[in-house]
Amino acid sequence: MNILPAVLQNGISSTARHICKLPRERNAFSHIQRNPTDQKLSSRTYSRWNQPNDPDDCDKRATNHVRAKYKHLIKVLKEDAEKREMLKIKKGKERSEKAKEGKKSSLLLRKLRGKGTKQVKQGRIADRNIIFVAGLGSIGMGASREILKKGPKNLLIFGRSTKPKAMEELRRINKKSNIKFYKYDVTLPLKASKELLYKVFEEYKKIDLLINGAGLLDEHKIAETVDVNFKGTVNTTTAIMDFWDKRRGGPGGVIANLCSASAFNPIYQLPVYSASKAAVLSFTISLAKLAPLTGVTAFSFNPGITQNPLRNKCNSWLNVEPCVGKLLLIHPTQTTKQTGKSLVEVLEANRNGVIWKVDQGRLEAVKWLGQRYWDSGI
Amino acid sequence: MNILPAVLQNGISSTARHICKLPRERNAFSHIQRNPTDQKLSSRTYSRWNQPNDPDDCDKRATNHVRAKYKHLIKVLKEDAEKREMLKIKKGKERSEKAKEGKKSSLLLRKLRGKGTKQVKQGRIADRNIIFVAGLGSIGMGASREILKKGPKNLLIFGRSTKPKAMEELRRINKKSNIKFYKYDVTLPLKASKELLYKVFEEYKKIDLLINGAGLLDEHKIAETVDVNFKGTVNTTTAIMDFWDKRRGGPGGVIANLCSASAFNPIYQLPVYSASKAAVLSFTISLAKLAPLTGVTAFSFNPGITQNPLRNKCNSWLNVEPCVGKLLLIHPTQTTKQTGKSLVEVLEANRNGVIWKVDQGRLEAVKWLGQRYWDSGI
Repeated sequence: MNILPAVLQNGISSTARHICKLPRERNAFSHIQRNPTDQKLSSRTYSRWNQPNDPDDCDKRATNHVRAKYKHLIKVLKEDAEKREMLKIKKGKERSEKAKEGKKSSLLLRKLRGKGTKQVKQGRIADRNIIFVAGLGSIGMGASREILKKGPKNLLIFGRSTKPKAMEELRRINKKSNIKFYKYDVTLPLKASKELLYKVFEEYKKIDLLINGAGLLDEHKIAETVDVNFKGTVNTTTAIMDFWDKRRGGPGGVIANLCSASAFNPIYQLPVYSASKAAVLSFTISLAKLAPLTGVTAFSFNPGITQNPLRNKCNSWLNVEPCVGKLLLIHPTQTTKQTGKSLVEVLEANRNGVIWKVDQGRLEAVKWLGQRYWDSGI
Repeated sequence: MNILPAVLQNGISSTARHICKLPRERNAFSHIQRNPTDQKLSSRTYSRWNQPNDPDDCDKRATNHVRAKYKHLIKVLKEDAEKREMLKIKKGKERSEKAKEGKKSSLLLRKLRGKGTKQVKQGRIADRNIIFVAGLGSIGMGASREILKKGPKNLLIFGRSTKPKAMEELRRINKKSNIKFYKYDVTLPLKASKELLYKVFEEYKKIDLLINGAGLLDEHKIAETVDVNFKGTVNTTTAIMDFWDKRRGGPGGVIANLCSASAFNPIYQLPVYSASKAAVLSFTISLAKLAPLTGVTAFSFNPGITQNPLRNKCNSWLNVEPCVGKLLLIHPTQTTKQTGKSLVEVLEANRNGVIWKVDQGRLEAVKWLGQRYWDSGI
């Protein structure tokens, strides 16, 4: 098929649809189809060149114009055709490569299937296996207490330092649930996260829920704040996809990311902390949109200021507000218990993509309007 | 002054205002003052306890209630009083420490003042000294070309790798402007940024504008994306505050952060990139709010998808969309020249806190509604 005349005659959208029979390609052009101006672009362009004051070479100029305008499209279509040919040849080779890549997780999944583990409805706490990445500071501790009251099968705390006293207290809350501590530093590279998760999946076979709750609030530690709050969440999430991603035969899962209300509107005295939380919020929005592909749903939980004696010691960026910790505490909005209870509520609700806010003890789903500012269209 | 009866009698706001004579403390309680319900809280609480069905110990209970409720306030006020005492004693000691801290930049600033450099209106390009942190890829190159047309005095390119050809091309555009390349890796610790800036400030005495434009788009490099896009911007900004911050006697300055329209609404196939840009946007909002204190203004520049052949090669997160680079290019929105011209326009406009968006060649200021979701109140 000759692309150029077809584009000139029918417009780009219908030509593209006609050429691309495969679902992925159809999807690739769907945004063009959605844009109503594009369909008539060629005729409009043609009539523009066909003005009475310039009648001589309008045909030639229109052709050149369209050729230049859709040069990239023609190139992409050609490349795709070539790629499909190459794919047929390399199919066998690719298969073996893929097998190598997914070796570890596939082995594990095969074991799981062999033992007859069936996929159950995700997200409820009772009798589930939960990983909670948390420092067991006041919010992490408050949340753990509330989670345990709902009776999870296994609650695996991933933390930087062992806290025997806190663990002892948690064990007393619910003696039927198994609570175990794993030493885990979210600031280490992705590989370390994968290694730990491999051990955990080997032991527990199935993990239903991952709660990313590690957080740092100290603007004198810029690199560490970014690493713990943002990179840590991304690393743990990326690592668990090896075991959960349904494209690799995984059973799917649920991710709850603990952000902060400062992700919506920064506490400007704490710009790095707020920005890192804005990043996690954005990341979670993406994760939720990817759920149909990966089988892994995600939502974010954004508490307002929670009463926490540790806050008192936190530093502001360049000391712009030496009393920032006190100012945060001076107007307490909610207790760690309230925050914990709200977290349990949203874990039980398990709604993909919801941006939860709990401020002054009130829990609500935020209608986020990011798309009104811009949409990539892909 | 006995705080508790005063709180009971007058309400928290008026008591706080009365106690706190210093401007900073007054500011600390301003959010309480703003909250109209607080002022009458004590009387309302009192009347609630004074119900006929419970007349016996209402006084005692009300006192206890208020004591518990405002425990944190009383503690803070006491601590503040103590702190003020301590401050008086330690004043001399602190001064010497401060001098040590600000030694390098103070020395430099003294030199500057000695040479009679006067503070001029910031932000215009002509005859200014500009630092542009950029890889001189297509967007960085397009922007540099447009900036040079406006005739800056010195354009200092901070880049990871030397690009003699690109530099040669830039030098040809405007022979009057001095263009110099500095090897700079934004992923290195804050200390490295400070060291380089010290050299630069020593040579040029005054820098008017910092453009943070280093960016990476490759979701197979998670750690590097976070480090270049987010941590790098924070590091360079934090480093330059040593020389610009008016609290340390600096002359102030202007920061332009190149983010992305994906900061508003993530391209979900590129979750880490989008999240890192959302972080830089949030950080810039904070910087702008801190301008009255630091003397450093800031705004963000968020381009939509810009035609860039490099895009073709970018990877999506976990390969969720193997053709993401092509999809980004298939619907080109603007050229690097358009993006560069828009950047020059916003640099000339120099409006603190404005969130600029340039999509499909159209430049506009975005009205960001983060505060409708939440406000810390401090």
